[in-house]
Amino acid sequence: MFQPTYLDHNATTPVHPAVLEAMLPYFSRQHGNASSRHEYGRAARRAIDEARQRVAYAAGAHPTEVIFTSGGSEANNLFIKGAAAVRKPGMVAVSAIEHPCVREPAKQVARAGWTLREIAVDRDCRVVGADFSAVLAARPELLSVMLANNETGVVQDVAALAEEARSTGAWFHTDAVQALGKIPLNFRDLNGHGVHAMTLSAHKLGGPKGAGALILDKRVEVQALIAGGGHERGLRSGTENVPAIVGFGLACELATAGLADGAARVGALRDELERGLVAFGATIFGAGAVRLPNTVYFSLPAIDGETLVGKLDRAGYAVASGAACSSANPEASHVLLAMGVDAALARGAVRVSLGAASSTADVRGFLATLGETARQLNRMTALVH
Amino acid sequence: MFQPTYLDHNATTPVHPAVLEAMLPYFSRQHGNASSRHEYGRAARRAIDEARQRVAYAAGAHPTEVIFTSGGSEANNLFIKGAAAVRKPGMVAVSAIEHPCVREPAKQVARAGWTLREIAVDRDCRVVGADFSAVLAARPELLSVMLANNETGVVQDVAALAEEARSTGAWFHTDAVQALGKIPLNFRDLNGHGVHAMTLSAHKLGGPKGAGALILDKRVEVQALIAGGGHERGLRSGTENVPAIVGFGLACELATAGLADGAARVGALRDELERGLVAFGATIFGAGAVRLPNTVYFSLPAIDGETLVGKLDRAGYAVASGAACSSANPEASHVLLAMGVDAALARGAVRVSLGAASSTADVRGFLATLGETARQLNRMTALVH
Ligand SMILES: Cc1ncc(COP(=O)(O)O)c(C=O)c1O
Ligand SMILES: Cc1ncc(COP(=O)(O)O)c(C=O)c1O
Repeated sequence: MFQPTYLDHNATTPVHPAVLEAMLPYFSRQHGNASSRHEYGRAARRAIDEARQRVAYAAGAHPTEVIFTSGGSEANNLFIKGAAAVRKPGMVAVSAIEHPCVREPAKQVARAGWTLREIAVDRDCRVVGADFSAVLAARPELLSVMLANNETGVVQDVAALAEEARSTGAWFHTDAVQALGKIPLNFRDLNGHGVHAMTLSAHKLGGPKGAGALILDKRVEVQALIAGGGHERGLRSGTENVPAIVGFGLACELATAGLADGAARVGALRDELERGLVAFGATIFGAGAVRLPNTVYFSLPAIDGETLVGKLDRAGYAVASGAACSSANPEASHVLLAMGVDAALARGAVRVSLGAASSTADVRGFLATLGETARQLNRMTALVH
Repeated sequence: MFQPTYLDHNATTPVHPAVLEAMLPYFSRQHGNASSRHEYGRAARRAIDEARQRVAYAAGAHPTEVIFTSGGSEANNLFIKGAAAVRKPGMVAVSAIEHPCVREPAKQVARAGWTLREIAVDRDCRVVGADFSAVLAARPELLSVMLANNETGVVQDVAALAEEARSTGAWFHTDAVQALGKIPLNFRDLNGHGVHAMTLSAHKLGGPKGAGALILDKRVEVQALIAGGGHERGLRSGTENVPAIVGFGLACELATAGLADGAARVGALRDELERGLVAFGATIFGAGAVRLPNTVYFSLPAIDGETLVGKLDRAGYAVASGAACSSANPEASHVLLAMGVDAALARGAVRVSLGAASSTADVRGFLATLGETARQLNRMTALVH
């Protein structure tokens, strides 16, 4: 069977073989419900406890701060809606480049009487300091600024932002879904600077779909999004997804153990890729900012991103256009629009995101195919005009 | 390795080997994000579409009525809180024996300005007709009555209740988590009688943890619990858990295909078990009502349920006491208290729930071990008193 080259790791990753191996027993022989008071149940509980330690260790958190969820979207909703339910209605401020699973719950909260304020970003996708200060002056109750953006890969200085926000008494949340396993991450440190909550997801770093976590400062109280049997300190009920949680734990351990080497290797590949793209005349989005080592987000002059991604797919390369990874109904990327990229250039956006298995051959093959495809598309455009 | 005999299938089930087999490709070679616009993404989307058809077929629903969630707890919360968010605040009425993941969101809604009313059940765990009529006279906005209870296995005549509720304009929801795969289930039929929504969960019928569904009449609008990228018709965002959804689909197909034979076989085993229990002087809860074929819930005179379950566990039999399956903090079962069972008898409650792999040998071995254990406990009690 032909396997296209997968260069879309910010959308999701294959499960690491050792991770799948570790999950398997929990589907069958050790299938217990972790709340059951018999050996099957206790085995499940032990597995969850161990995974909780691994996730906590990878994120620089304490195990008691880990609230397991079904994924990053749930964790973001849990924080935004759960915090809004216990604080007096006021302002919720989120950066203009947040993932829809932060933006949409913030809009729901706004429909229920809160004020929603977006925090501006600059041309390189960084939060604008002056606008952030203006937001703080308006005394927000809740703040959410993502650690690393899924489209551009741009990394925010969340510690500095949280430090500045400290005196306002707002609760500060950061979506670290794209950061975990790609760059060093330490909740203890961020928490020292005033970050109260942080979102993680397993399937972006070689773990399975169906597990994520909200890391939550224990002094912060939120209302459960999924209420019921009282699991996860009463903050997330429902039979625990034991195999997925076990996989999440091991994926965290593997990704953080190999982080320094992996990031250097992938970063070098990304740089080679980027040099090739620039030689084709590409615009690289967020190039002036600190970025994740695995992500390149670019446009080629006068070429439509969707069309290009479709052609690359048929030529054996799986990459993303615009914000397709995060949305069932893709439209022009709100991230690029927030960065002030003009709509025509934004329509050309293509994201390549490398992973643990990506190789020099993948990058060179991709560049060659891209060059050929772009030439074809340009010829067609020339014929039409 | 010693494998205790698993008789706790209402808590969770092992994943059927064919189901696990079907899931495996979606962890690695076909690991795509279903929203991605390349071959990996399309393969994931096709898998989800097929699973949606299977779940719909098993539940007697239309594929467009299936909203995939992370499990039954999420689906129940989605309905209760999602419907409350779009209807004008009024009364939410739920039966007194609902699972905590219906009771707790109903309490949350009550804290936000709704009135919560519990519907009484009789000694056999059936909704009391007169109390239900009284509730209807008070014009509830939302109603939730479970199809089959997880502790007693008692089955409600949900069609008749919904039919009676029809003229009130209330939205009627039923939690069918314990019914799916154990008794025939047809949403089309229930919908014809006025049921608007129904909750399912994969891990109770040989599917994996991490998948469930809300089956929702399309004329009913609810607010998303997990908002974001707009997945599942905008009603449930988050990267789809493709392997779990695939497993859910196949588990539904297998369980419903073998339903008639399986139910007869398991029902005969259950009857043998029950005769043995009665011979020991056990009280069988809900014995006068229609029940799931796999469930026996009983108390032995003057024996504590927790203690008994602990001893049975050490003797190689995994069963449940009280409501342990559904709660991280077990207390006296609210189901038994609602049935008017006195607290002393309720403390003795033990649940045996059979599954596809349960055998005559399991039942006879269990009865022998139970008899021996009970004799020991009685002797100890006699010594103490
Ligand atoms: C930045 C970011 N946040 C949140 C999410 C959502 O996480 P999940 O897919 O686990 O729901 C994603 C990916 O979809 C993401 O890229
Ligand atoms: C009747 C009932 N409803 C809902 C649930 C919750 O489903 P899940 O475990 O998939 O969250 C359970 C089991 O825990 C149940 O028995």
